[in-house]
Amino acid sequence: MQQLEYKGTVIKECFFERKNINKFEAIFTQGNGYLGIRNALEEHYVGEIRDTFITGTFNKASKEEVTELPNIADASAVKIIVNEEEFSLTEGKISSYERSLDLTTGESTRIVKWESPKGIKLDLMFRRFVSLDNEHIFVQKVELLCDQDANIIIESGIDGSVTNSGAMHFEDIQRRVYDGKYMEYIAKTTQSHVKVIQGAVCSLNKEALIIPVMGRRTLANKYSLKIKANEKLEFEKKSVFFSERDKEYAHLKIEKRLDEIKKESAKLIRELEVQSYNELFKRSGAKWQDYFEKSKIDIGTDDIYVKTSINFALYHLRIMVKADDNRVGIGAKALSGEGYKGHSFWDTELFILPYFTYTHPEIARTLLEYRYHNLYGARLKAKENGYEGAMYPWECAWVDDGEVTPLYMGADIVTGEITKVWTGIIEHHITADIVYAIDNYYRVTNDNDYMEKYGYEIIFEAALFWASRLEYIADKDRYEIRNVIGPDEYKEHVDNNAYTNYMAAYTMRLAIEKSEYLKTENKKLFDILDSKLDLKYIKDCIEKKLPKLYLPLPNEEGIIPQSDTFLGLKKLDISKYKNSDEVLGIYNDYNTKQLNEYMVSKQSDTVMLLYLFRDLFDHETRKKNFIFYEDKTLHDSSLSKSTHAILANEFDFEEMSYKLFKGAISVDLGSNMKSSDEGIHSASIGGIWAAYVFGFGGVTVESKGLSIEPCLPKDWDFLEFPLVYQGARLRVRVEKDNQVRVKKLDGKSIEIYVKGEKLIIQ
Amino acid sequence: MQQLEYKGTVIKECFFERKNINKFEAIFTQGNGYLGIRNALEEHYVGEIRDTFITGTFNKASKEEVTELPNIADASAVKIIVNEEEFSLTEGKISSYERSLDLTTGESTRIVKWESPKGIKLDLMFRRFVSLDNEHIFVQKVELLCDQDANIIIESGIDGSVTNSGAMHFEDIQRRVYDGKYMEYIAKTTQSHVKVIQGAVCSLNKEALIIPVMGRRTLANKYSLKIKANEKLEFEKKSVFFSERDKEYAHLKIEKRLDEIKKESAKLIRELEVQSYNELFKRSGAKWQDYFEKSKIDIGTDDIYVKTSINFALYHLRIMVKADDNRVGIGAKALSGEGYKGHSFWDTELFILPYFTYTHPEIARTLLEYRYHNLYGARLKAKENGYEGAMYPWECAWVDDGEVTPLYMGADIVTGEITKVWTGIIEHHITADIVYAIDNYYRVTNDNDYMEKYGYEIIFEAALFWASRLEYIADKDRYEIRNVIGPDEYKEHVDNNAYTNYMAAYTMRLAIEKSEYLKTENKKLFDILDSKLDLKYIKDCIEKKLPKLYLPLPNEEGIIPQSDTFLGLKKLDISKYKNSDEVLGIYNDYNTKQLNEYMVSKQSDTVMLLYLFRDLFDHETRKKNFIFYEDKTLHDSSLSKSTHAILANEFDFEEMSYKLFKGAISVDLGSNMKSSDEGIHSASIGGIWAAYVFGFGGVTVESKGLSIEPCLPKDWDFLEFPLVYQGARLRVRVEKDNQVRVKKLDGKSIEIYVKGEKLIIQ
Repeated sequence: MQQLEYKGTVIKECFFERKNINKFEAIFTQGNGYLGIRNALEEHYVGEIRDTFITGTFNKASKEEVTELPNIADASAVKIIVNEEEFSLTEGKISSYERSLDLTTGESTRIVKWESPKGIKLDLMFRRFVSLDNEHIFVQKVELLCDQDANIIIESGIDGSVTNSGAMHFEDIQRRVYDGKYMEYIAKTTQSHVKVIQGAVCSLNKEALIIPVMGRRTLANKYSLKIKANEKLEFEKKSVFFSERDKEYAHLKIEKRLDEIKKESAKLIRELEVQSYNELFKRSGAKWQDYFEKSKIDIGTDDIYVKTSINFALYHLRIMVKADDNRVGIGAKALSGEGYKGHSFWDTELFILPYFTYTHPEIARTLLEYRYHNLYGARLKAKENGYEGAMYPWECAWVDDGEVTPLYMGADIVTGEITKVWTGIIEHHITADIVYAIDNYYRVTNDNDYMEKYGYEIIFEAALFWASRLEYIADKDRYEIRNVIGPDEYKEHVDNNAYTNYMAAYTMRLAIEKSEYLKTENKKLFDILDSKLDLKYIKDCIEKKLPKLYLPLPNEEGIIPQSDTFLGLKKLDISKYKNSDEVLGIYNDYNTKQLNEYMVSKQSDTVMLLYLFRDLFDHETRKKNFIFYEDKTLHDSSLSKSTHAILANEFDFEEMSYKLFKGAISVDLGSNMKSSDEGIHSASIGGIWAAYVFGFGGVTVESKGLSIEPCLPKDWDFLEFPLVYQGARLRVRVEKDNQVRVKKLDGKSIEIYVKGEKLIIQ
Repeated sequence: MQQLEYKGTVIKECFFERKNINKFEAIFTQGNGYLGIRNALEEHYVGEIRDTFITGTFNKASKEEVTELPNIADASAVKIIVNEEEFSLTEGKISSYERSLDLTTGESTRIVKWESPKGIKLDLMFRRFVSLDNEHIFVQKVELLCDQDANIIIESGIDGSVTNSGAMHFEDIQRRVYDGKYMEYIAKTTQSHVKVIQGAVCSLNKEALIIPVMGRRTLANKYSLKIKANEKLEFEKKSVFFSERDKEYAHLKIEKRLDEIKKESAKLIRELEVQSYNELFKRSGAKWQDYFEKSKIDIGTDDIYVKTSINFALYHLRIMVKADDNRVGIGAKALSGEGYKGHSFWDTELFILPYFTYTHPEIARTLLEYRYHNLYGARLKAKENGYEGAMYPWECAWVDDGEVTPLYMGADIVTGEITKVWTGIIEHHITADIVYAIDNYYRVTNDNDYMEKYGYEIIFEAALFWASRLEYIADKDRYEIRNVIGPDEYKEHVDNNAYTNYMAAYTMRLAIEKSEYLKTENKKLFDILDSKLDLKYIKDCIEKKLPKLYLPLPNEEGIIPQSDTFLGLKKLDISKYKNSDEVLGIYNDYNTKQLNEYMVSKQSDTVMLLYLFRDLFDHETRKKNFIFYEDKTLHDSSLSKSTHAILANEFDFEEMSYKLFKGAISVDLGSNMKSSDEGIHSASIGGIWAAYVFGFGGVTVESKGLSIEPCLPKDWDFLEFPLVYQGARLRVRVEKDNQVRVKKLDGKSIEIYVKGEKLIIQ
């Protein structure tokens, strides 16, 4: 029997199995982009990862570690004791159990019938949500029925004794229970000195004795009462969360903020006290409805798994982003786990951003403004590494932290020693990836305001970095890019990684183009940027080197070498790993050094290049290279399968495409119960959306503009999705025969291409 | 059915109940005074407190907190997986379970028959001990039988993701698995910068595939193998522990220590690899045998609970003390839990030290040398508080830390706010208690060397503190001691606490006496101390004030007022709390401020005075005051009952004495399954010994020398205990009729008093 069931708009945990709790904590995560709360059960279990995050509160737990998003005090745990027996699913008997998450309302509901070791029978319902109406609110409700008269104790509070896997991020500042019921906890991050205040208030539908309980770093209220057999007990808890980094208080002087958030927190908690769970839920639900109206994708298929996958993606895409705060990025695990420490990677720009660019352009802009603010750290990194311009950090945290990639991690399978992480040092393509995303955003939105304020500056600075990064190789009289890691991280220290070289060339070419455009079309801005950045110098640097930059071309067999050495590497039969459920399974047999010696890839590298630039090579070369590299790709990165699915569809490998697509939507949603332990894969979730819209929907926006060339799976009846193009809100419907209907919901008239034909949408 | 059974030399956990795991973790703690490891089960459970401590490694987790003994990385957990099912007692079925701790060998053994949820049957035996032969070693063994052929995975390592209830004390320095099997973990305390190195090696009686596993702050080896039905699998793990604070390396420069302990650790782990569990256990067992030979007490009773209690006390008294290291004290919870943060209180001197003074005087000396080293902090505290001389910290940690009492704790039941801790500020009697212990030690041991090197100096400095502490009250023309807390901590901010005033007077009087003694008998030492401390000045200060120090005398009813206000306080019926199992239960109904208004005591205060100075008042006054105060004492301190038992026995309240005695031995050993969660009560355990030897055995050493006036419970046939008096090792046997036989085992001849008659023991 499958533990995880798919109901279209709902995903369901059908039974409880302790060893799989982390899966459900992660994929059932609730949030709103400001707050993220893993769906750990109300009772504690061994192995649980009970995380709550407030975006942007980054802190370094110790000098030896890098900054990370700290796990703040927990509000979610609720202890229930019936006649001295504590409710726990690993004790007594579970008569029935189900938990579901409604992807369109953000509410999770758990219904349990349980018999205690001594035979008391309980009917329990747990509901909870993080509000989309007010970002600071988390609400829980427990309903309890007992088959006999009983003494009940419910204990719940704020538990600051949490860590990120043992790393402590907070010092206690204050704990109190005031007015006999309101709980308040204030803590401060140890290194970044961000104060977080949390409040909570509980209510019951029966009178209870309240006893405050304080332990180290914790406080709680204990509610004791008696209930009759079959009398329904209702317990509600409202928790609020504020931090000194909150956007609303960012304009205040730092020393004023605590007072202000204390005031706000106390005010809010009193307001919430008199509002019911249902009222609060209704308000949050209305916001979810608005969101889904703008975002929903309809699929004409009976495959409920497929239908669920897009709602799952749309749900997580919403809760991973702080839509209006340009000081924070999206973490590789969003706010759903400690994995990757809350850091942002190229994942955002190439895998997540497209969804926002094409559906919620105002959010895409926020995310790209974040990258503008990152320029501070990027310039710093360039300087530290002896380059010019802006060299984006491989991993980003707080807006001006600069490079935060850890230097060491994991255990080497062969030597047993911890391994050095090279990505932060030599994975450079991100500086071009961000430029690509900006260029794409501009093509889709025509947002000149963004370009003028932020975009051009990033492009020029990034291009200058690349120009300074090129190495002149005298005996070949050409420039090369040596010693990098491309997207395929199984190949460290390679020379002339095709992806990197082409992306660098693209960035420099774009800078020249934009510079010339401004010079003629917007002289005023040109002059401002010139005086700030010295555009002539940048242009000179690029023009001196770019013509001699080595761009790997297809060899005699038509294969573009992924790097100088790739095609000469040893071959390896990787079917064992490709067919395995285990991600990174190859690391059980080979270490990084050994992997460097085989012709295997973690993820698309040259294929990624084909995906981003469809006109770079002719159709035959593209197809040949896709086949060649797909065969060698383990898809050990969660970013990989959706890209391959899209290209396979383009090349009419229908079966392969659908298989890859199924793989892509299964990274978190599939039956592998271990894949999401450390959090969901935010880029993979962006990839799900891309597979629908760019893959089957065939949407691209290249130089000529928006083009739709769909190719639906043969048993789909239709596919309908929204697009926002140059200010016009569209609804696109693709029929079974790939006929396209485009409906404009609002905005000005636009020009698009459908299957090669130009259309004017009035 | 009782969960905890008493077998004389063994205590037994008869079945598993998750909610009581903390009790057994604590009372089954293993150690050797250097190392202390709570007996958390090999598998993890919700609510477990899995602590490992190395004495002396104190660290402050944050600026807001006080220094504490940090929980170092865990070596005790062992994960067992059979055909993908993880062994856990909260899942599947427990067919049988028992765990016992042999108090005379230090080994714990757990035997479990378990059926997995899918029906696989396992027979398991877990054994473990901390070596008394080599302080750095912890050894575990698992034997496993399965009813069918199965795949087994055993995973165990070193887990540094531990904290003290969420407070992180260590930064990772290095983790590695070298030579494919040896695990090594180095971490450094965050504030005191003490590096700790831990090593581990595992072995199996069958070949297994070893895979190293590294997580954040953790490393482990995973052993995979297949076993046949009913084939016995044996797994042994040896773990080693070193710190830069270890006594053996204290002579090295700080920067040399890590290299040295790394070398030692690596060497030891290779030596242990080739030695079996049984060999290592034998060597440790021999040391336990030596110890019990010197310490054992025989009781002629059929009450197995009583018999167990003394072995329980002797066991914990051994593992709580680092016998040869005068830089560390004994924590209030010893090395068995995080309670009281590893800090030493007056508990050591008045409740634990007597055992060592009378049985292992060399260890008592070590502990009193620790107090000499504390002088640094005591002088500092005096100065900071505007006094002269040495004012001992209420709580002590590392030898020169000074005062480490936390300033805040707990929740006020009425206001809900955290409460201020006044003990560190105004509980002053410890400075006299230490002097009392030194004086007593000297009377018992005649250790002039200690006195000359350390003892006199402490006495003079303490006396000077007291002289400076006295306040002149002009309208009464007398000196008083105002605003203190006496041993009865339910009365804060009292004036003229009888215990404190008498102890202060005693200290000052002793200083005068010792000063005069030295002046005539040891002029050389007198001159040295005089030039260092200015003995004339101290004498002048004392002589000016002492005669006018107010010492509360019995009132008209013959009652010595505990403080100026005590006898005027409101009366309260405390039978509810006295009869309750819950300690500190009164705090559920009253807060500290309110308790100050009632005539109730947490522990003996005036009674303690009667206990320490038997000649201070006449028999009738003593008896009357005992009755008066016992009636008002809640015994909410674990120090209380043994003292009252001893006095009740003296006053021939046989039944009351035995009841109090049973209460005293039950603090940790009794059936209250919550009393020891945060660790055992080391002073209470010292009190158990005192109840036997000072209570029923009637041993005192006052001015005239050793006196034995026994009074056995009426149904005991005999009591036999060891004493070391002035260098002579004695074995004392008290018969049913209280006849006494004293056997000298070695040492010079001595003079003692038995029931008032002087005896010369040749």
